[in-house]
Amino acid sequence: MPLTGVLRPGHCAIRVMEMGPALTHYVERLGMLKVGEDAQGRVYLKAWDEHDAFSVVLREADAPGLDYLGFKVASTQDLDRLEAALRAHGCAVERIPAGELKGCGHRVRFQIPTGHQIELYAEKDYVGTLTGNHNPHPWPEGLKGMKVCRFDHCLLYGPNLADTADLFMNVLGFSLSERVVTPDQQMVGAFFTCSNKAHDIAFIEHPEPGRLHHASFLLNTWEEVLHAADLMSMHDISIDIGPTRHGITRGRTIYFFDPSGNRNEVFCGDYTWYPDRPPITWETEQLGRAIFYHDRKLNENFLGVVT
Amino acid sequence: MPLTGVLRPGHCAIRVMEMGPALTHYVERLGMLKVGEDAQGRVYLKAWDEHDAFSVVLREADAPGLDYLGFKVASTQDLDRLEAALRAHGCAVERIPAGELKGCGHRVRFQIPTGHQIELYAEKDYVGTLTGNHNPHPWPEGLKGMKVCRFDHCLLYGPNLADTADLFMNVLGFSLSERVVTPDQQMVGAFFTCSNKAHDIAFIEHPEPGRLHHASFLLNTWEEVLHAADLMSMHDISIDIGPTRHGITRGRTIYFFDPSGNRNEVFCGDYTWYPDRPPITWETEQLGRAIFYHDRKLNENFLGVVT
Amino acid sequence: MPLTGVLRPGHCAIRVMEMGPALTHYVERLGMLKVGEDAQGRVYLKAWDEHDAFSVVLREADAPGLDYLGFKVASTQDLDRLEAALRAHGCAVERIPAGELKGCGHRVRFQIPTGHQIELYAEKDYVGTLTGNHNPHPWPEGLKGMKVCRFDHCLLYGPNLADTADLFMNVLGFSLSERVVTPDQQMVGAFFTCSNKAHDIAFIEHPEPGRLHHASFLLNTWEEVLHAADLMSMHDISIDIGPTRHGITRGRTIYFFDPSGNRNEVFCGDYTWYPDRPPITWETEQLGRAIFYHDRKLNENFLGVVT
Amino acid sequence: MPLTGVLRPGHCAIRVMEMGPALTHYVERLGMLKVGEDAQGRVYLKAWDEHDAFSVVLREADAPGLDYLGFKVASTQDLDRLEAALRAHGCAVERIPAGELKGCGHRVRFQIPTGHQIELYAEKDYVGTLTGNHNPHPWPEGLKGMKVCRFDHCLLYGPNLADTADLFMNVLGFSLSERVVTPDQQMVGAFFTCSNKAHDIAFIEHPEPGRLHHASFLLNTWEEVLHAADLMSMHDISIDIGPTRHGITRGRTIYFFDPSGNRNEVFCGDYTWYPDRPPITWETEQLGRAIFYHDRKLNENFLGVVT
Repeated sequence: MPLTGVLRPGHCAIRVMEMGPALTHYVERLGMLKVGEDAQGRVYLKAWDEHDAFSVVLREADAPGLDYLGFKVASTQDLDRLEAALRAHGCAVERIPAGELKGCGHRVRFQIPTGHQIELYAEKDYVGTLTGNHNPHPWPEGLKGMKVCRFDHCLLYGPNLADTADLFMNVLGFSLSERVVTPDQQMVGAFFTCSNKAHDIAFIEHPEPGRLHHASFLLNTWEEVLHAADLMSMHDISIDIGPTRHGITRGRTIYFFDPSGNRNEVFCGDYTWYPDRPPITWETEQLGRAIFYHDRKLNENFLGVVT
Repeated sequence: MPLTGVLRPGHCAIRVMEMGPALTHYVERLGMLKVGEDAQGRVYLKAWDEHDAFSVVLREADAPGLDYLGFKVASTQDLDRLEAALRAHGCAVERIPAGELKGCGHRVRFQIPTGHQIELYAEKDYVGTLTGNHNPHPWPEGLKGMKVCRFDHCLLYGPNLADTADLFMNVLGFSLSERVVTPDQQMVGAFFTCSNKAHDIAFIEHPEPGRLHHASFLLNTWEEVLHAADLMSMHDISIDIGPTRHGITRGRTIYFFDPSGNRNEVFCGDYTWYPDRPPITWETEQLGRAIFYHDRKLNENFLGVVT
Repeated sequence: MPLTGVLRPGHCAIRVMEMGPALTHYVERLGMLKVGEDAQGRVYLKAWDEHDAFSVVLREADAPGLDYLGFKVASTQDLDRLEAALRAHGCAVERIPAGELKGCGHRVRFQIPTGHQIELYAEKDYVGTLTGNHNPHPWPEGLKGMKVCRFDHCLLYGPNLADTADLFMNVLGFSLSERVVTPDQQMVGAFFTCSNKAHDIAFIEHPEPGRLHHASFLLNTWEEVLHAADLMSMHDISIDIGPTRHGITRGRTIYFFDPSGNRNEVFCGDYTWYPDRPPITWETEQLGRAIFYHDRKLNENFLGVVT
Repeated sequence: MPLTGVLRPGHCAIRVMEMGPALTHYVERLGMLKVGEDAQGRVYLKAWDEHDAFSVVLREADAPGLDYLGFKVASTQDLDRLEAALRAHGCAVERIPAGELKGCGHRVRFQIPTGHQIELYAEKDYVGTLTGNHNPHPWPEGLKGMKVCRFDHCLLYGPNLADTADLFMNVLGFSLSERVVTPDQQMVGAFFTCSNKAHDIAFIEHPEPGRLHHASFLLNTWEEVLHAADLMSMHDISIDIGPTRHGITRGRTIYFFDPSGNRNEVFCGDYTWYPDRPPITWETEQLGRAIFYHDRKLNENFLGVVT
């Protein structure tokens, strides 16, 4: 399949209350690399196995949360096409000029019905992974903390999930990989993929708009999930739940909070998604098992605490 | 990215000398499921996490090897388009009618410059995984042996790698993820992907045409590679090499032989491929490390024994 | 060190409310082998990697809990010597004749200050592991469920921990590997070893005498802890907590309940204990972290639910 | 069992050709800690999870190999008793005064029939693990390379295995856990334990006396064996064989060489040994499988290369 259109979640811009503790968290604990900062004081981070210049942008603010989530698309032609499609769909679309984020080409920003700001962009400076593209070693020495490989996806909470699904599937070309439905067949949770991953973005129906449930980072193994959990205890990082398994996507996971209260996930593993299969359906009566396969019930934090 | 065109390696047809021992091998040891046979005596197998009706077809013959490797494409429109493109490229294309393989739609078969028979098809009966699509468990109980998840890829040996690369990239829409080059920049090994996997098919330049180096099946973890290795010893299955790691694709792997001498691989793990990154290049002086990252040299078997 | 005196926890006799569901639990889910039953209706189980005839005895009763925990000693001379020492210490000691448990030599039973019945015995029929002692494979095929390797230890709740420690250390020859102490230096938790394992029996100070907190079974890896956790969800087994890590002993663990409400643990890993090192001390303010290293707090179940 | 007599292999003194590369190897790659050196230029190392002051002593010399292997005994009484027993057995015993090795009490040295120098000692400075004995974390941050936990055992090659077995079992109180026997029942390989570990020292019958086959260090998991193997490739450390499994002791392992040609092993896992079970017997026809469970044959290096 020629990989065209939206490729992947390419960056998330997270608000933090204080930059110092946030950097300790994302750099020393998660193991991301600080790759730059800009005149506004925003700090740019990337994980070691990412090729593009950055994937997380931290901004000091009075309240935590997600400023926007950006998806990389395969080409500027695709970007123009998708911008036109968004406008045709009735979205208010804003063009952010190239360079507003250092090293990133122009971005096409729009608000989705859940109230989140989503961006598309086609160009970002290429810096390569820490292992390079020439006789590479399988991993680099000297990584810190949890040694996250890659920013992977976000789970967002907000209203109007049906309209959001329509936008992601029919305008942006995502597929629905898994969904949670009520007894009367209303979809209250939706997991979308623009790749062979089981999810690239996910939503839970929620009355408040624009909420971040978590930003998720990839690990390689269940051993690394344990290693991450141990580090959280060593450094008094607040754990939400885990280590555990998700029913949805089969991931092995742990949830925790950054010093500003933004939830993070580190996880490994899912299955290889292909578009010639139906989505997996979970009933709300099985929501506990769907989310936390072992506990089979949701903790209050998981449902209620968002930023 | 809307997943279009060629989706994945969907089946491989393998010649075995005797069906009985072959079934013991692929069913009892690898853990595939026997899902049918046909009037010609061909036996159809699938792995538990595959959705389509079958992925391996075994045929009794006087010599081992690969009859053909089939790729599923996203739609009949894509199939027609690719058939036309192949003809335009000068390939001799044969249409195999629907049902010639039980449960498979019509196939478009052509010979590639390495001498292998490749097929495309758009339709195959959907049967689903053993865990289903409704409140699924993460894995099914009762699997046998190595519990392989999925047929993953083949490595093929043959001449004319440059022309083959041209065909896969420019006609079929694959990307080159990794390559091995000589000091004078000739490509002697090529790993192609049509997905976010690091490889869906691979080739090594070799004087004899049409050779199968190995058919590869996916496991979940390095623990499962050990488990598979242990089972091989318990059942006197001939091991080629492993457990070890590949430099190329980073996979953790073990190679072994079916009772007819066809090489199999079970492996876990690689990285997530995206088309906006350059291919990884290995120099032939580093070929040992590229293939067997730990031993850093090739064993004679690996280079010479093909079927 | 010539291994003399008390060797290991050799059996535990557990009361269950109904034998049928209990056997499903211990045989189909934990993966123990049913090896016999007796005229009283007691059922004998062993794990695959144990050498002696049985390690768990199930008895139907009106209330769950522990009838007694038996330790194997190295020789009948050691048994006689320890019996004399117990009597000299003032323990009421009862001799249970050989054969009262099928395949077990005579047992020396006594009540410890926490109110539990403890036994010593020197002889039990040798049956060997499932892999044998002659060119063995590393593990046997065909195990069920969680595939527990060995009954490992019990954690018991009861009063008079100081006297119990005196008995285990000064009469029975155990060492204190880890302990939990209050700010005024009272020991409220004690982990004892009679081997190079970090614990062979453990106690928590508790007002009610004779309570079983859990019976614990050994797994090999953190992957197997996940596998066990997944099986618990597949079969609706009630999980107390986990997968997680213990601070005490460093074990990776999950707690769950048998159908009668007796708590089980399956776990892997600790360190190699030697008697030339001081015990590890945990302060009660750190008890959460000591018990559940990740959550850093105790759940109510863990403290209150005993049988 | 009151742990008395010989407790464990406590130190090995290894000859290296050049101290600089040797320290890079043992400190940067294996992850041991340099804890001191003495006037003779010997360098003292310990692993993070060891309690005593050192476990490896490196000495620069013209040829690699083992100077001596020292076992810690539980008390000076035990040391005196064992010294007397060795003399009674006819061994020439030498007393090395306290302090000859910095921080070590007096040592009782003797030559065993295989030609190796073995020592016993009862006292060594206590320094504790890197995690301490007070509310400890499960592992320390900042370890280097392979992060070995502990010096575990040596495999020695030499003649007169029968007499050596007699000495270890009947004088020093070790048990035979596993053995390799020829068709005419001659023991040509012997694995001895003085603990609940499957082996604390092992011997292979070999014409040259006093040879070191390997010094072995403990890891926690099969994942860590892979991590170690990857590091070996990154740093061009010569690998003998692995990652693989041993039939004998069930260990998961990799063998490699220090810069002077001394073989090292890092491994994880075995079973819990108890003295009330017979030794495991391997036939020489199964020696390949016994040593390398997957390859089922010995490589020439393994048999012939010793220092």
